[in-house]
Amino acid sequence: MKKVKIYVTLRESVLDPQGSAVMGSLHKMGYAEIEDVRIGKYLELMVSDDARDIDALVNEMCQKLLTNTVIEDYRFEIEEAVSQ
Amino acid sequence: MKKVKIYVTLRESVLDPQGSAVMGSLHKMGYAEIEDVRIGKYLELMVSDDARDIDALVNEMCQKLLTNTVIEDYRFEIEEAVSQ
Repeated sequence: MKKVKIYVTLRESVLDPQGSAVMGSLHKMGYAEIEDVRIGKYLELMVSDDARDIDALVNEMCQKLLTNTVIEDYRFEIEEAVSQ
Repeated sequence: MKKVKIYVTLRESVLDPQGSAVMGSLHKMGYAEIEDVRIGKYLELMVSDDARDIDALVNEMCQKLLTNTVIEDYRFEIEEAVSQ
């Protein structure tokens, strides 16, 4: 079993209203040191070992379903999952 | 300037309906190799260098606003931000 960690972030040129709202709240709470907040998604997939080329598989799933490549970037890491 | 990367995940014992929905879609698309999907949040904070103990600061913000510690776990990394 492999664990795939996928990080999805908004492209730099895309406005992040959710991030701005969180930054506004942090400032109101007194955290003036915070200069920017960007919010993305983090996905963990468990993939069975009989998957073929896992790198290609993850790229395909990201492009078809998991991310919106027009406004989002993604990167991922593949780890050996520890059996429980 | 420091860049703080925060990963927020649902606790293992908490059901993840969003993850289940995504897994269902992946299965319908033919990706039978996927055995589990969990969805969390990924936050990037830019913190000015005049912040005092940044580790304590991030923990405080996570506990007060950024995460729900009843159902979520978080971990974070602090990096030197590259000036642009």
